[in-house]
Amino acid sequence: MASDFRREITGYSNPTVKYLRGLRDKKNRRREGKFLVEGLRLLTDARETGRLPEMLVMATGRDPHPLLDELERAVIDGGGEVIETSADILSKITGKDNPQAVAGMFAEFDTSLDSLDRTAGSIWMVAQALRDPGNLGTMLRTCDAVGAGGLILVDDCADPFSVEAVRASMGAVFTQQIAQAGWGDFLVWLRAGPGQLVAASLRDAVPYRGAPYEAPCFLLVGNESRGLPEGYEDACDLRVTMPMRGRADSLNAAVAAAVLAYEVLDALES
Amino acid sequence: MASDFRREITGYSNPTVKYLRGLRDKKNRRREGKFLVEGLRLLTDARETGRLPEMLVMATGRDPHPLLDELERAVIDGGGEVIETSADILSKITGKDNPQAVAGMFAEFDTSLDSLDRTAGSIWMVAQALRDPGNLGTMLRTCDAVGAGGLILVDDCADPFSVEAVRASMGAVFTQQIAQAGWGDFLVWLRAGPGQLVAASLRDAVPYRGAPYEAPCFLLVGNESRGLPEGYEDACDLRVTMPMRGRADSLNAAVAAAVLAYEVLDALES
Repeated sequence: MASDFRREITGYSNPTVKYLRGLRDKKNRRREGKFLVEGLRLLTDARETGRLPEMLVMATGRDPHPLLDELERAVIDGGGEVIETSADILSKITGKDNPQAVAGMFAEFDTSLDSLDRTAGSIWMVAQALRDPGNLGTMLRTCDAVGAGGLILVDDCADPFSVEAVRASMGAVFTQQIAQAGWGDFLVWLRAGPGQLVAASLRDAVPYRGAPYEAPCFLLVGNESRGLPEGYEDACDLRVTMPMRGRADSLNAAVAAAVLAYEVLDALES
Repeated sequence: MASDFRREITGYSNPTVKYLRGLRDKKNRRREGKFLVEGLRLLTDARETGRLPEMLVMATGRDPHPLLDELERAVIDGGGEVIETSADILSKITGKDNPQAVAGMFAEFDTSLDSLDRTAGSIWMVAQALRDPGNLGTMLRTCDAVGAGGLILVDDCADPFSVEAVRASMGAVFTQQIAQAGWGDFLVWLRAGPGQLVAASLRDAVPYRGAPYEAPCFLLVGNESRGLPEGYEDACDLRVTMPMRGRADSLNAAVAAAVLAYEVLDALES
């Protein structure tokens, strides 16, 4: 590797270190339009889907790996920057005690509704005011598994570009379409084309097994504590209910979305 | 409330505060056989299932609540202790910045295989080396939802009595049976009675929809990164596979368990 393209950073107070650390905060990610991805596996997933980091940060003393060499070459060929630093400084950047040996900084994607191609999948997930980035990442992972089009984040949701969400998505943040919008704008967009809006609900609902699902099917899941606002449920084309045999009246949001999505997948394919 | 039964604690270095804080560590929980539960909702769930904390810790300046008054009375009537302290100290104990106004210390339950009543449900979950306490709690929550018997933790799993697991379980830690065992002991216990062992697997597997499930059905889910050891899959009576339409070859462990559990619930009831 030609050393011209590499930079070594040894100080904690280096401005690049501070900048990268800052990307752990949503506010800074929003302002800069950048986010961090940790680990060779996720970075390789990204590369395979055509996404390269603008900056690659590698820890000195890391184990060599052919995929890491390929990644480094691709970043340099793509005009990106490669930085070597200590494992300690990398740990400061990612905020993890046992950091991966490599991290990358990516430009955030366009998450406007206009960027979506609704023909990309016959299942979509729609999360409303979902607060847990882990749930959000898990939903993206399930979206990938059922061959969905993507995930639409309605109202004030967790940030899909947070380290936790990216990690839980297992790379699906790079393969699934993602949009963020207010409820009103989402409805206008939805009704401008084909699409059935389905909510898991306890009132005026039919059993989720065997319900009349239609593609493209948009599965709406509400906030972890409060569920969906009543008006949002009313706007749905179909309300379905899932068996609750115990004391609780709800499932984890990512779990509910997955059970529904697999039912819809079976219904649409059979 | 007679003030005789109450104790006020004002110092961070008070031994009771230190003892309770220590219960955030698995090592201390194991040694003491106690665990912490935060929040009125979970504590009320516990009371409704017949479990009372041995010690109730309430923050001064909390909003009054009839359920909290009832809980306090029940703890005192049951011979337990009630402690009042500042919101700051309670925050130190639970390790949360915005703590709930109340927490309780419970005695851990018997988690030996011998304590299980396998007739209690026709679905059971079995987690192998599951490392994420959130996943574990979410699986307990799903167990409750499908009316399962409980969750069996095989090999080195996360602690079901950790604050994260208890929180994610949404109270199901109190309603579901829980056992912890090595793989060998689990198999001996399982084969000593009726029970079909089912794994989600990629090899030599039948589609999970319409597979010949039998009650009591034990759903085996493996470690988040490594999945199930091959020998463990071999020991199963049935291996089922779920559609994977995307790039990934697996689902989040708690999601996989839930999709399977809802399929089994439908199969056994129809």
